[in-house]
Amino acid sequence: MTLLEHLKQYTKTTLPMHMPGGKRRFASDLPYEWDVTEVEGTDDLHDPHGILLEMQNRAASLWGAEQSFVLVNGSTGGILSAVRATGDGAVLMGRNCHKSVYNAVSLCRREAHYLLPRGGEILPEDVERALTGNKSITTLVITSPTYEGVISNIGAISKICRKQGVTFIVDEAHGAHLGFAFGESAIALGADIVIQSLHKTLPALTQTAVLHCKKAFAPAIARENAVFESSSPSYILMASADECFAFLASGEGKKAMEAYKNNLLAVREKLKASLTHFRLLESPRYDMGKLVILTDGTDTTGKALAEALRRDHKIETEMALPYSLTAMTSVCDGEAELNAFAEAVLALDARAKPAKTHPLPAPSLPEKVYEPFALRGKEGKPCPMEEALGKVSLSYLWAYPPGIPLLVPGERVDEPTLEIAAAYERAGVPLHFIGAKGEASCLEIL
Amino acid sequence: MTLLEHLKQYTKTTLPMHMPGGKRRFASDLPYEWDVTEVEGTDDLHDPHGILLEMQNRAASLWGAEQSFVLVNGSTGGILSAVRATGDGAVLMGRNCHKSVYNAVSLCRREAHYLLPRGGEILPEDVERALTGNKSITTLVITSPTYEGVISNIGAISKICRKQGVTFIVDEAHGAHLGFAFGESAIALGADIVIQSLHKTLPALTQTAVLHCKKAFAPAIARENAVFESSSPSYILMASADECFAFLASGEGKKAMEAYKNNLLAVREKLKASLTHFRLLESPRYDMGKLVILTDGTDTTGKALAEALRRDHKIETEMALPYSLTAMTSVCDGEAELNAFAEAVLALDARAKPAKTHPLPAPSLPEKVYEPFALRGKEGKPCPMEEALGKVSLSYLWAYPPGIPLLVPGERVDEPTLEIAAAYERAGVPLHFIGAKGEASCLEIL
Repeated sequence: MTLLEHLKQYTKTTLPMHMPGGKRRFASDLPYEWDVTEVEGTDDLHDPHGILLEMQNRAASLWGAEQSFVLVNGSTGGILSAVRATGDGAVLMGRNCHKSVYNAVSLCRREAHYLLPRGGEILPEDVERALTGNKSITTLVITSPTYEGVISNIGAISKICRKQGVTFIVDEAHGAHLGFAFGESAIALGADIVIQSLHKTLPALTQTAVLHCKKAFAPAIARENAVFESSSPSYILMASADECFAFLASGEGKKAMEAYKNNLLAVREKLKASLTHFRLLESPRYDMGKLVILTDGTDTTGKALAEALRRDHKIETEMALPYSLTAMTSVCDGEAELNAFAEAVLALDARAKPAKTHPLPAPSLPEKVYEPFALRGKEGKPCPMEEALGKVSLSYLWAYPPGIPLLVPGERVDEPTLEIAAAYERAGVPLHFIGAKGEASCLEIL
Repeated sequence: MTLLEHLKQYTKTTLPMHMPGGKRRFASDLPYEWDVTEVEGTDDLHDPHGILLEMQNRAASLWGAEQSFVLVNGSTGGILSAVRATGDGAVLMGRNCHKSVYNAVSLCRREAHYLLPRGGEILPEDVERALTGNKSITTLVITSPTYEGVISNIGAISKICRKQGVTFIVDEAHGAHLGFAFGESAIALGADIVIQSLHKTLPALTQTAVLHCKKAFAPAIARENAVFESSSPSYILMASADECFAFLASGEGKKAMEAYKNNLLAVREKLKASLTHFRLLESPRYDMGKLVILTDGTDTTGKALAEALRRDHKIETEMALPYSLTAMTSVCDGEAELNAFAEAVLALDARAKPAKTHPLPAPSLPEKVYEPFALRGKEGKPCPMEEALGKVSLSYLWAYPPGIPLLVPGERVDEPTLEIAAAYERAGVPLHFIGAKGEASCLEIL
């Protein structure tokens, strides 16, 4: 029985003199009738022995994990749990990790070392070099697939980590569909802890996620989930996760995933064959579910393309940047939806013209003077970029693309970073300064 | 326009080539059609400027707060944000605080000092004495109302904190309905930061909460919310919070809250007049929405009462303990539901007999040897209670009632604690040992 089936049955039978206050009868279009709490028969996510344990076991068997945890605070919650559950040693992390990884490492006061991705990928040889050169590193965190769909060689990196006795965490927030007609999940390829957003690429409600891990990590993960996740997890969110698992396990689901893959292959072929100005992003290991349209070398920015799609075609895309547009697809997109997108892009491609655009330099790694956590509570002084050379930044300086911070708090502003930032500005890439009090209009220095 | 109204309108107009994967069309009884993400017009909870800012402003004006944040990871998320946003100084906290407060204080490596409640209340004179005696304390955290409905004198405690320059955080998870026909919320009574679960006592989906604060704390709270809460907050959860705000602001809502209060008064009178063996819990400042039936002095335990209500009357209650039963009511309970509960309790009261029960001693405060955070990663040795005297505990020892830990990690096991634990066990109160790896069968020591 799935959780939703249980809820439908259960909620007809008792008078609730307990939470939640909606009492399953608040007049609303929201599903109050299934909003229950931990009572007889509904189990307890933080100490599961019944239907929620079965749900988690279904997840583990679907992705080939030793143990799985359903999460209701998104991948963010899973990243926090994973980073805190893996000790206090230094962390090696992809410089292109999501902000939540930076937050988690800083929260846990762990020393941070960075790996620059190449073409979006974290390369096994770079991991090996970094681990060999620094024995204080006990944990590696990388993001794969990236937001743009680039997948790293998880099997090779897992082997290196195992050899070096380092725990390997993969932020697979964008790869929950891997393993279902689309290659394999990092957990099946040897990673120790893998966090997936269910809602990003599969049909499950927003804010649902799943953490897979090797058995040895399960007690610590359970302990940290109890720290970071609501002690009143939503049964509606959990039920949607379980419906997603049931769908993936069903014949209908398997057929749908195959059809989705074939439709994607067809639409990708069509785009590659017919685009004359824009290009479709691909890389050696690639998540084909992302349709990333590159617009550099044309007179059309990704933002302009997104705006035209919205205005003229009623299509809303995931992310628009100066030189690219990312469309996210899922198994809930059929041939009709994928074709509608492709046709609209092709129509706009036909109107685009070649133009000179500025290539973006790759970010570099500035000198680290302090760990970010050591600067907590420090008051920063605003400082224009022109005067920042040699100063220690108290801000993050983020740029999208490439989703890599040019500066992390505690790093010294150097020449290459200033040049890169200037090049980004010239290209119209907005720079985000995140200081001690949130987004600010310029850099803050120590 | 409320968020739900916006979602209903918006979701008819575009083809989503973005998250979530359910694409608003997954066939399900769950409301996939309103599961959207941060796109044009839906704003961004972590940087709100549009409809979500309006929603938060509605909340602030309803409870009389300078600023309010809607939370989607429950009060747990709000507690984590509040504790981390208020610096690194020592924390004075009610010993009856929820586990999330213990977790937050330990996570933030803040020194912890405790106040024992008296009759569930934290007394202003105890706060004043503790603050005067320890100038390293910068933050006070108390729970009011308690799970049992006991409210502390927030106005008096606020004044003391203001005088001493101490930040006052109130975990008002059980008091979101305060201010609507039921006294006032702590935020209107002078507290600095107040966290309320919306779903516990109001009609909003489980896992929704709201944090109210004075303006000065807002930037730090926003920063910490971005650390602890999903970067993909659920629009369904947020829409349910906003529907709740619209309901509270409406004439219909105000009438419903008044009717709820009158129904509660009537049912409480009826219970007080008619109960012959059980008693109804009340205290000087009390949340009348909680119907706590005391069963001490009878042959019926709270658990047996809950079981009989479930089996014979199809009524599920919130919490059953050896000597009490807690029923939670909300504005969604009408006269019929409240009467059904009262009639059922009265029927079971008529069958109860007087019996000798053991009074429970009040907990004491053992000597603190280490801060809990200093023991992170330490491996404990299991130790039976008989051999624990003088040893330093690595476990929490929780007992419900009274929801107060008898031991916190780093405290030395002393004679009074052993006597209290033994008395609890004789009375059938289950003791919970939470060690480094979660719930265990006995104490772990250093």
